[in-house]
Amino acid sequence: MIVVLKKEHTPEQRADLIEWIKSLGLDTHLSEGKEKTILGLIGDTASVDDELIKGLAIVESVMRITEQFKKANRKFHDDDSAFDIGKAKIGDGNFLLIAGPCSVESEEQICEIAKSVKASGAHMLRGGAFKPRTSPYDFQGLHADGIELLLKAKKLTGLPIVTELMDISQLKYFDEVDVIQVGARNMQNMELLKELGRAKKPVLLKRGLANTLKELLMSAEYIMAGGNEQVILCERGIRTFETATRNTLDIGAVPVLKELSHLPVIIDPSHACGIARYVKPLTLAATAAGADGIIVEVHNNPEKAMCDGPQSLKPEQFADLAESINKVREAVNPEKR
Amino acid sequence: MIVVLKKEHTPEQRADLIEWIKSLGLDTHLSEGKEKTILGLIGDTASVDDELIKGLAIVESVMRITEQFKKANRKFHDDDSAFDIGKAKIGDGNFLLIAGPCSVESEEQICEIAKSVKASGAHMLRGGAFKPRTSPYDFQGLHADGIELLLKAKKLTGLPIVTELMDISQLKYFDEVDVIQVGARNMQNMELLKELGRAKKPVLLKRGLANTLKELLMSAEYIMAGGNEQVILCERGIRTFETATRNTLDIGAVPVLKELSHLPVIIDPSHACGIARYVKPLTLAATAAGADGIIVEVHNNPEKAMCDGPQSLKPEQFADLAESINKVREAVNPEKR
Amino acid sequence: MIVVLKKEHTPEQRADLIEWIKSLGLDTHLSEGKEKTILGLIGDTASVDDELIKGLAIVESVMRITEQFKKANRKFHDDDSAFDIGKAKIGDGNFLLIAGPCSVESEEQICEIAKSVKASGAHMLRGGAFKPRTSPYDFQGLHADGIELLLKAKKLTGLPIVTELMDISQLKYFDEVDVIQVGARNMQNMELLKELGRAKKPVLLKRGLANTLKELLMSAEYIMAGGNEQVILCERGIRTFETATRNTLDIGAVPVLKELSHLPVIIDPSHACGIARYVKPLTLAATAAGADGIIVEVHNNPEKAMCDGPQSLKPEQFADLAESINKVREAVNPEKR
Amino acid sequence: MIVVLKKEHTPEQRADLIEWIKSLGLDTHLSEGKEKTILGLIGDTASVDDELIKGLAIVESVMRITEQFKKANRKFHDDDSAFDIGKAKIGDGNFLLIAGPCSVESEEQICEIAKSVKASGAHMLRGGAFKPRTSPYDFQGLHADGIELLLKAKKLTGLPIVTELMDISQLKYFDEVDVIQVGARNMQNMELLKELGRAKKPVLLKRGLANTLKELLMSAEYIMAGGNEQVILCERGIRTFETATRNTLDIGAVPVLKELSHLPVIIDPSHACGIARYVKPLTLAATAAGADGIIVEVHNNPEKAMCDGPQSLKPEQFADLAESINKVREAVNPEKR
Repeated sequence: MIVVLKKEHTPEQRADLIEWIKSLGLDTHLSEGKEKTILGLIGDTASVDDELIKGLAIVESVMRITEQFKKANRKFHDDDSAFDIGKAKIGDGNFLLIAGPCSVESEEQICEIAKSVKASGAHMLRGGAFKPRTSPYDFQGLHADGIELLLKAKKLTGLPIVTELMDISQLKYFDEVDVIQVGARNMQNMELLKELGRAKKPVLLKRGLANTLKELLMSAEYIMAGGNEQVILCERGIRTFETATRNTLDIGAVPVLKELSHLPVIIDPSHACGIARYVKPLTLAATAAGADGIIVEVHNNPEKAMCDGPQSLKPEQFADLAESINKVREAVNPEKR
Repeated sequence: MIVVLKKEHTPEQRADLIEWIKSLGLDTHLSEGKEKTILGLIGDTASVDDELIKGLAIVESVMRITEQFKKANRKFHDDDSAFDIGKAKIGDGNFLLIAGPCSVESEEQICEIAKSVKASGAHMLRGGAFKPRTSPYDFQGLHADGIELLLKAKKLTGLPIVTELMDISQLKYFDEVDVIQVGARNMQNMELLKELGRAKKPVLLKRGLANTLKELLMSAEYIMAGGNEQVILCERGIRTFETATRNTLDIGAVPVLKELSHLPVIIDPSHACGIARYVKPLTLAATAAGADGIIVEVHNNPEKAMCDGPQSLKPEQFADLAESINKVREAVNPEKR
Repeated sequence: MIVVLKKEHTPEQRADLIEWIKSLGLDTHLSEGKEKTILGLIGDTASVDDELIKGLAIVESVMRITEQFKKANRKFHDDDSAFDIGKAKIGDGNFLLIAGPCSVESEEQICEIAKSVKASGAHMLRGGAFKPRTSPYDFQGLHADGIELLLKAKKLTGLPIVTELMDISQLKYFDEVDVIQVGARNMQNMELLKELGRAKKPVLLKRGLANTLKELLMSAEYIMAGGNEQVILCERGIRTFETATRNTLDIGAVPVLKELSHLPVIIDPSHACGIARYVKPLTLAATAAGADGIIVEVHNNPEKAMCDGPQSLKPEQFADLAESINKVREAVNPEKR
Repeated sequence: MIVVLKKEHTPEQRADLIEWIKSLGLDTHLSEGKEKTILGLIGDTASVDDELIKGLAIVESVMRITEQFKKANRKFHDDDSAFDIGKAKIGDGNFLLIAGPCSVESEEQICEIAKSVKASGAHMLRGGAFKPRTSPYDFQGLHADGIELLLKAKKLTGLPIVTELMDISQLKYFDEVDVIQVGARNMQNMELLKELGRAKKPVLLKRGLANTLKELLMSAEYIMAGGNEQVILCERGIRTFETATRNTLDIGAVPVLKELSHLPVIIDPSHACGIARYVKPLTLAATAAGADGIIVEVHNNPEKAMCDGPQSLKPEQFADLAESINKVREAVNPEKR
């Protein structure tokens, strides 16, 4: 970490600062120029709060030169992480296609969709049981019953399942869930992340609406620091000034995250755009950019389409999408299939 | 709610849509123009999901004409809300000055600051016991012990206290806490909000980094819908492209929130800018704009300033600030004092 | 256009408003509900300023239901626009690959790059002569001499050229330039756009850093309203809170623009990310999403790479990129090639 | 400037880099650590493009430790800048109150408003003659005729005038205009800025919708580098995700700009919020935060309010505002009046 000191400071202030830094177990290297004095911090600076230092009266600016995340960092883990999820696999060239409805509504609904998406090539089933809604007056999901229905669909099709956990108290229902999802609104719910660090199953961690990629990696670090290294990173659109799509898919997140980290990276095109007819182009873009998987919404209710999410594909649209994904993967990276 | 239909749609699609809307307990009014067909939804549309309707295949756009928040809405509650917090009061012309350290560190620290800020005119003490930190390697607070220390300072000075709750499981430590704070990262932690709807004490609800003012009001609505109507709204800076300050204080939030809602609105200038020397101008700006209070960080450790938050004022700076606040309040609104 | 009136208004205020609307040549349709009064504006509302109406004392909200852009609007021009640029073609299934250096530096440089990118499959040469720089102390380009050098490269290779115009006064140098580029900083330089409406050649219009897609289309409309209908829309990254890439590529812009407008849409991955090693994934993403072309930076100076843009590819990287683009295009849309 | 090199680089690459830096007239200081190699650039780095260096293959990150702006920099110009504008004065404790209509419409209108705002205490008259509009179909202003009318109002009242210049070609009409305004959309129209560097009168430079404060200062630097040091900085709201106000007023810009630069800083509350009823709280906030002036929209047409800007005050509202500004200024800074 490099700390630039202001021109105006007393020797005492500087000595105080250096002493305090040493009390943190770090060494310092002082370099005095004509206009600027620069202090290098040497040692493990991951636990040093750079915002705190930036605010000190004698400090002008601070530059962190080593990342704060370690377990998620590719620098200390050169190979891509990969792990099994039931019979499915993600990472290191394995593409994971996850599909299912926005919310679990009934046994018939979830089982029908599960069979349909499996037939089209999905490797995993998604579906919301606990639903985070902006309004307290909106449908909040079937809760534990929803998970029961997902487990029936899992039994029927053999597809592993992923569903969202909103609070630690709900964890008791997740024993047979294969992957626990942390939603965008909870990406920095630190107590939840710590608890998932003790879980023995993969976590699908969604990026918060206004969180940087480094913050996403720090949230992954919370889970990994607790001992659970099976984290899947998910870009699902960020909030910007543009309103033509619900959120703005940050497609650059794919190469950036894969460079900074060894963890698998997937994309959620359904929430990124919020509009079914844009799901296909965004999915193919993510595939071409090198994502390790896609999580996409599919409904089974064409005649009552209005009850389904605006961002959900029909089964035949999903089948076409799955086929196109395969073609793009072949074009981009033929030897990996 | 007004729904604009696309040019291309069949009578069956339209009939399906109208039937479904009626099944929600609403009436419809159809207006067919040359170029557009417009459907008005009549009745209580608060629980209708406009995003869902926006995504229907035959829908071009949707405009909500009544807000989804009711209990927080000034339209149904013309007078400013005001409530007592110990001997302090907020709302309806009562200005609440909250001060204290970023984190509770020791009995000596919190008691000394409490005495000091009380002497300067603070009405309430703040201090973090459970700390949400971006990095798992940063200091996470003293937890329950921190709350114990806050209660000692409360006993000593008579100042009511406010501190942050990060997870429902911590609620057992909050019995004697006067106001429960929900942090920006948890503004849409819906399970937490629901639980606080059952609490019998005021909640200080901070705006999330990327949440709109309407979403802030919807989160207040979660708490109020549960029966707890004592919510204080807090603007603490939003995330934008500008990096000169840690966040961007949305000063316009004050008049907008006070127009849309009857709830009291306070400002946190310390987190908004992240730099102590900008706290005074932002505080005076918020006071002049009509805020109902300020929550500001103060430390007591001038000789070891580096250990304190970069955004914290020294006690003498706080005393000067408190005096300036009074002058600005007198200038802006003399008859209310 | 739909105008929702506030509850509190007098019959006189309403009559004044309706009279004024009629004076604009529009009809009105009034619909009085229990809680809301809604006024529909009927006729050509493109020239009605919705911001103005939104601010009237008796108005609560406004919804525009027909877009303000007409000539750029797909609703009035169902087929994709396509046009010739020298021997190249863009639009309606024709993919345009534009490559070249950030700045034109010397005859040797530009000619060498032109030959190289042509050999790899580029259809057009780019290169900056007039350079918009944030700092007045940065290199501002070779100006008219730069255009001369581009024309030499054009003569040598037959590749048509595109370069940026920063001010109307520079137009005299653009006689033999094939496509005039409007940079992101000038997207709303309305006088420049009007002038280009009188030009007889295609304009490549870059999206501004903080402009919505509808504003981009309104800027295209400025050019088209003047009589020049050959506009190419270019998404080049928007400004968000994320700093891992220089800007955030809004990949959703491709399907949104192609739905709203008939104009061709290209992507500039070099400026979107600012880092050469991310150019390939972003380019393939754009191709898979359905873009009509790519404009990418290439340099020829591997041994002095530091003098070239950080976002520029080496010639061999460009050759590889061009090959991958073709594969992805074949995967996505085989029948169009 | 500090440059952090990647772990993997050859001695040749490093030598090339150092040689190139020296060719720019700079010295280097190399510091090799166990994990990182750090290169300090010593000398005048204002003209070094940090984006370029950041993109070099062997560079990991770059930190500029001296600002690129010099003439606008407070470090080299400790005292506040102040200058006369007719009989008015701005800077160094002189508060400048500018008022007038959005657009100049007629002699009667502009003269009546001029007299009215002068009576209420305005020091200067504003009014748009050349209007930048998002849509080509919106009213574009009276052009040269509008400036004629402004000059009549100036003659009548003695108030100096400010109006917007959109293109260099319009400069011929600005001979008797006292202050030339550069609008937000033209903040980075570099050719325009260069031309204004040769003007002999003050420039009011508005911040772009998505421009950082440092970019605003770099645009001021363009003007100042040309020899014109009379620049007034104007914050007028930035574009964020929040839509409750037209833009988000960045009130923190006041203390930040006044710290970084000696130039006067004013606020435009009318464009920042877009809604007349929010203008007063934002104006008082800006005054309390230490702004050197306000530019505010006032109309004179209460019976035809609909034709005036939604963000414009009525004359009596302006009179009340001017009085409140004075009170807040007295409260904040009594000795300066």
